[in-house]
Amino acid sequence: MRAGVLGLKGSYSEKAAIQWLGTRMNEVEQVFEYCADIQDVFTLLGNHGCDIGVVPLENSIEGSVGVTLDLLLEHDVRIIGETIVNVEHCLLSKGNKEGIRVILSHPQGLGQCRQFLKEHFPHAELRTTGSTSHAAKLATEFEEMAAIASPKTAQVYGLNIVMKNIQDIKYNHTRFLIIREPGLVRVGNDQSSAQHKDLWKTSVIIYLDSDRPGALYEILEEFAKRDINLNRIESRPSKKALGDYVFYIDLEGKADDAIIKDALYNIEQKVHMLKMLGSYPKFDQYLG
Amino acid sequence: MRAGVLGLKGSYSEKAAIQWLGTRMNEVEQVFEYCADIQDVFTLLGNHGCDIGVVPLENSIEGSVGVTLDLLLEHDVRIIGETIVNVEHCLLSKGNKEGIRVILSHPQGLGQCRQFLKEHFPHAELRTTGSTSHAAKLATEFEEMAAIASPKTAQVYGLNIVMKNIQDIKYNHTRFLIIREPGLVRVGNDQSSAQHKDLWKTSVIIYLDSDRPGALYEILEEFAKRDINLNRIESRPSKKALGDYVFYIDLEGKADDAIIKDALYNIEQKVHMLKMLGSYPKFDQYLG
Repeated sequence: MRAGVLGLKGSYSEKAAIQWLGTRMNEVEQVFEYCADIQDVFTLLGNHGCDIGVVPLENSIEGSVGVTLDLLLEHDVRIIGETIVNVEHCLLSKGNKEGIRVILSHPQGLGQCRQFLKEHFPHAELRTTGSTSHAAKLATEFEEMAAIASPKTAQVYGLNIVMKNIQDIKYNHTRFLIIREPGLVRVGNDQSSAQHKDLWKTSVIIYLDSDRPGALYEILEEFAKRDINLNRIESRPSKKALGDYVFYIDLEGKADDAIIKDALYNIEQKVHMLKMLGSYPKFDQYLG
Repeated sequence: MRAGVLGLKGSYSEKAAIQWLGTRMNEVEQVFEYCADIQDVFTLLGNHGCDIGVVPLENSIEGSVGVTLDLLLEHDVRIIGETIVNVEHCLLSKGNKEGIRVILSHPQGLGQCRQFLKEHFPHAELRTTGSTSHAAKLATEFEEMAAIASPKTAQVYGLNIVMKNIQDIKYNHTRFLIIREPGLVRVGNDQSSAQHKDLWKTSVIIYLDSDRPGALYEILEEFAKRDINLNRIESRPSKKALGDYVFYIDLEGKADDAIIKDALYNIEQKVHMLKMLGSYPKFDQYLG
């Protein structure tokens, strides 16, 4: 099982991959393909360089990862699972706090620690990296550099933990998606680990017909009148015009449940585009 | 009229402020207070250091500016206007293309040029600044540095335009909000420049009661059954738990129209929180 993950050894995506694979295919040999950015995970998957990809989708402080949403629309992939990782950012450096002039991290890492940075390092230069783990690797070069990354990367790259748990809100979780190419043989038991309807979710992308009043409402009505619960609704720019959006919707249930099938069929008649991203077992804190 | 704007002289926010003020209070002397980041604009406004603040809200390529959304919830401000600015990013430097090793910009600037950077500068170091104009100012320090910023900042800081129109999609617009403290004397004619109902919009933030199925649908129903058109619906993390959101809704009409009042009154009974951000004239490409 080759998993394409964002970042280097010790990354949060690697942690997510281990967590998800561990509950599903403990016996299978796991190889990680490390990718410099999220787009590279999708590209590697498209080139058959890995069997599954693991990418961050949303964080409890900083919100959606826009690139991931955009790539889910642009690429032909299926979501086969999700997992939630507890994120405890640390400030890592070879030097000490007083000497730090440059702080590196993924934009999400910088965003999750915005108040911390403003308070403790108002004059530091902030550098963006493709992943938090790459930031940790770069921080080994100079004592005046520090990375915002996981404690695991401190071990991996031999950095000091200068400050612990530095995100602006202690409660900090990131949801990762497990994706694969469509049409391939199913990976492991990804379609069988949950039986009860409530334990599944289905993700779709919808592009409405122009901005007809009530268009979104009519879509939600199809779910509401069938008592289908929505877990999430997120808008992204269509990139055609400002004020024109595509909607990402997560709903409870499996795409082949009769009731969900019926709702999606009816919605498809009303919208410009409906893209099915897949049905997959909902993250369970006890199962992963 | 003192306007707090994001960034330095030549910034997109300054352009937005000039554009908005120009159509409304041409005769009034305009003083710009330049702020290092978006949070500083809100703080300055709270400290009466300016009469209005001008901050970016959303971009047609990169989507919402999360910090602005969060600050609209945290601070007690009113939106009194909006304006849309055409964004044409340039790569600016003292040196030439071949020598560029470091590229600086606001995270939105880097995000809007993601493909460009991957293609032309895969190995450049990317640095985050509080604004694109600050990036331009910093890029004057070394020839190996470049900024992603407006052509205007090239003039202001004496930089060469190395490459023009580098955003990933040529069509690139950012919507800015004009905010003020609530309860102050009205700014200029901000309540009178549009008369027809369709030319107004109202922005609210809604926090639903837990994740009761169909809760969002019930809110949208209140608008739909009154034929109130929604221009935008955007979710942000509540920051309490992953999967828990607040919703930002822009609707057509004024808060003191009987029909809007009625809808909002009914919604208020159903939700945990409804925050009124204000009613203001919709951006008109001919009026600004």
